[in-house]
Amino acid sequence: MAKKITSPAEDFSRWYLDVIREAELADTAPVRGCMIIRPYGYAIWENMKASLDRRFKQTGHSNAYFPLFIPQSFITKESEHVEGFAPELAMVTHGGGKELEEPLAVRPTSETIINHMFSKWINSYRDLPMLLNQWANVVRWEMRTRPFLRTTEFLWQEGHTAHATEEEAREETMRMLGVYEDFAREDAAIPVVAGLKTESEKFAGAVDTYAIEAMMRNGWALQSGTSHYLGTNFARAFDTRFLDSDNEQKYVHQTSWGVSTRLVGALIMAHGDEHGLRLPPSLAPVQTVIVPIFRSDDDRTRVLGKAAEIRGRLADAGVRVKLDDTEGASPGFKFNHWEVRGVPLRLELGPRDLEEGHVMASPRNRPGREGKFTIPMEGLAERVVERLDAIQAEMLEEATEYRDSRTYEIDSYDQLVQQLPQKPGFYRVWWAGGDEEEQRMKEETKATVRCIPLDRPGGSGKCFMTGRETDRKAIVARAY
Amino acid sequence: MAKKITSPAEDFSRWYLDVIREAELADTAPVRGCMIIRPYGYAIWENMKASLDRRFKQTGHSNAYFPLFIPQSFITKESEHVEGFAPELAMVTHGGGKELEEPLAVRPTSETIINHMFSKWINSYRDLPMLLNQWANVVRWEMRTRPFLRTTEFLWQEGHTAHATEEEAREETMRMLGVYEDFAREDAAIPVVAGLKTESEKFAGAVDTYAIEAMMRNGWALQSGTSHYLGTNFARAFDTRFLDSDNEQKYVHQTSWGVSTRLVGALIMAHGDEHGLRLPPSLAPVQTVIVPIFRSDDDRTRVLGKAAEIRGRLADAGVRVKLDDTEGASPGFKFNHWEVRGVPLRLELGPRDLEEGHVMASPRNRPGREGKFTIPMEGLAERVVERLDAIQAEMLEEATEYRDSRTYEIDSYDQLVQQLPQKPGFYRVWWAGGDEEEQRMKEETKATVRCIPLDRPGGSGKCFMTGRETDRKAIVARAY
Repeated sequence: MAKKITSPAEDFSRWYLDVIREAELADTAPVRGCMIIRPYGYAIWENMKASLDRRFKQTGHSNAYFPLFIPQSFITKESEHVEGFAPELAMVTHGGGKELEEPLAVRPTSETIINHMFSKWINSYRDLPMLLNQWANVVRWEMRTRPFLRTTEFLWQEGHTAHATEEEAREETMRMLGVYEDFAREDAAIPVVAGLKTESEKFAGAVDTYAIEAMMRNGWALQSGTSHYLGTNFARAFDTRFLDSDNEQKYVHQTSWGVSTRLVGALIMAHGDEHGLRLPPSLAPVQTVIVPIFRSDDDRTRVLGKAAEIRGRLADAGVRVKLDDTEGASPGFKFNHWEVRGVPLRLELGPRDLEEGHVMASPRNRPGREGKFTIPMEGLAERVVERLDAIQAEMLEEATEYRDSRTYEIDSYDQLVQQLPQKPGFYRVWWAGGDEEEQRMKEETKATVRCIPLDRPGGSGKCFMTGRETDRKAIVARAY
Repeated sequence: MAKKITSPAEDFSRWYLDVIREAELADTAPVRGCMIIRPYGYAIWENMKASLDRRFKQTGHSNAYFPLFIPQSFITKESEHVEGFAPELAMVTHGGGKELEEPLAVRPTSETIINHMFSKWINSYRDLPMLLNQWANVVRWEMRTRPFLRTTEFLWQEGHTAHATEEEAREETMRMLGVYEDFAREDAAIPVVAGLKTESEKFAGAVDTYAIEAMMRNGWALQSGTSHYLGTNFARAFDTRFLDSDNEQKYVHQTSWGVSTRLVGALIMAHGDEHGLRLPPSLAPVQTVIVPIFRSDDDRTRVLGKAAEIRGRLADAGVRVKLDDTEGASPGFKFNHWEVRGVPLRLELGPRDLEEGHVMASPRNRPGREGKFTIPMEGLAERVVERLDAIQAEMLEEATEYRDSRTYEIDSYDQLVQQLPQKPGFYRVWWAGGDEEEQRMKEETKATVRCIPLDRPGGSGKCFMTGRETDRKAIVARAY
């Protein structure tokens, strides 16, 4: 079984696809660039959704649902927006057997149709702020696709808010970036870097785009969520105005922000190892699996009875637990089955363990014999909960160390050119470049400016490409 | 405000649209036949989803996600299926600026693409049963649309299962019909009638279709959920076979079943009254609203302080509670605001109530002064929880009485023709008719056979149209 997964050191891309196949996360669809999210992969997404949705509601947002189809004319109203999205649209031209008068775009994102409705719903400053979110599917006709990371159709949430002032809208933009950062750290155990995107990488129609950037285990970056300050760009295009308390008509200031099923890809590549997935307990569909071990029928009855009791105790303690009592599969087969699927903690229970009054525990993040330890039956549930919390913390710690050990401070562009191919990672550089420098960098090194981290270093230095003095540091990296 | 809602007795269709507008459940989209589900309407759908999803998981189903787009050739593989759905398809013909080689249908339902994947995933009897569900949007190009009841795009869940034998698949079909019936009764407080659809009304591609039929408050029926036994129809079209334990290759037996945002329409029309929505506590986004009443600043502080304390106590008891402390709105305005939105229980709190140590309670299902009663501060949360349970039960009881009082046993078709226009309702008739009789009935009375209830009367009688002896009774009604 283990041989079915290519070594990540040997070929990271193949390893990624192997893990998705062997852990049954997704499958290729019979439609170009689309994927099927299989139950185990979807269960991870459901856990992500539940955590994010709770965070969105805690920050005052309500969910709503807007149409899948957007009239072509809407997309063209905001000039930068149409430039960015027109080449990626899927168009419905026929409905009910007839050609449509106006083709409909399958939504690539919903700023336009939502602004159309905002114009109707928002009249007075009393209607503000308007804080909405939508869980939906979107379609972008991508040339090169890769499961979870970039697919023609994907699932996401898109927050859309309208505010009376720029200040409030900018606060909201940063608040939601913070929500994403916190979710990534606390639930996904991924220590993302939050920062501002450069002009060339910002959302089509935004004034400013902020993102969280995660480091994958090949040293590449993955943009894992974005939060945009849209200014009054869409408000002007759709005439979204309100009567302010000073009796003047004003355009609303807006934000939008989103994360997608791409996060599942981030989880795979930020934590996985040569044996397959490794899931942080907070998002794992199965947090603890119990594998019973027996030979005789007599042992079978005793072991399965105790295993069922343990399952009950763990479930009562709020643990997502699975007892693998599949017939006709060896313990070794089951160990591998759940290891590939990244279950954080495995409990083994055999006749000897019964006699000695404990279970054997094997944490996924400390593979092999060294990681194993026993847990006494007494207080078992409490110990398992503690252990899961510890695994969650250890995974964040490990990912942070990994990221930090592959973050390099360099002064010159030459260093990047020479070092990057051997040492992929986050390169922190003084940055005062523009489109031209970014283009050159991309062509020569395939790296891009991922973001200008919010966490400013202080002081100043010379831009590593232009030599201009600047107080901004950027992170440069290869990215998906 | 009340005048904004047409009397349901005067014009039920206008009343329905008025309620949707005034309760801010949905809005018209700038795309033909589509709607926007606004936050309050979406919150009802979220509560429905949560309850249904829990029931699906309890019965062993896992969620997955299949593509929005289905190759045209897939739809045509099952002959009845294509006949039923081809006229309603929205077709994507262009993607990324180019014409596609094969047009893609926007899914009207997913039997075809799911069967394509089942053929890949199912090899042995050990892979069965396969029990999947999908929460998704679907598109059907409908000629006449009405918010929630029939829209071009709608949200739904579609269960898809594959089994080794017909018996197991038929059991599953009935199990899920039972889940829907139970959900309708227990959560939506709607006493649906579960039964078999006639040949002409069954799902395109099914062997048998079962449905739950609800009675609306104008005496019309609304099909509120369906469960299909598909036999081996799709398995044959997609070659979905498995190696059985007897070492023979066999086709799987399948089911599919679904409910949609149409259920929100059912809720509105099964319970609403001249003042607006009436929501059963189980599905209400806000179960209890607290309206503080005061004039002086001094009273304001005391009343709001106590109201906040009550909110806390109710929230701790698991009640979805809202304290309406909006400034500048009168208590009367607030009463009406939440009445239109169907909040099951309103608590009023003024200085006098504070002194007397109670709150004034006003249940939505007993409007006016007669329904009001006081609840002492002590044990308030327990009393509110009890009261909400009572309202839930009363609403089901009222809906059941309403349905039963409009269910008529008749012997002749003439009776139907004469009575139906004045007395819309469920007509129980002996039924041995076929397509021809159904067609005639529809043309002459606009009524249709809603279902052959599972709950058989026993005995036999003469079909009310053909005169043939039969042991089957059907329900005939006008329907949406």
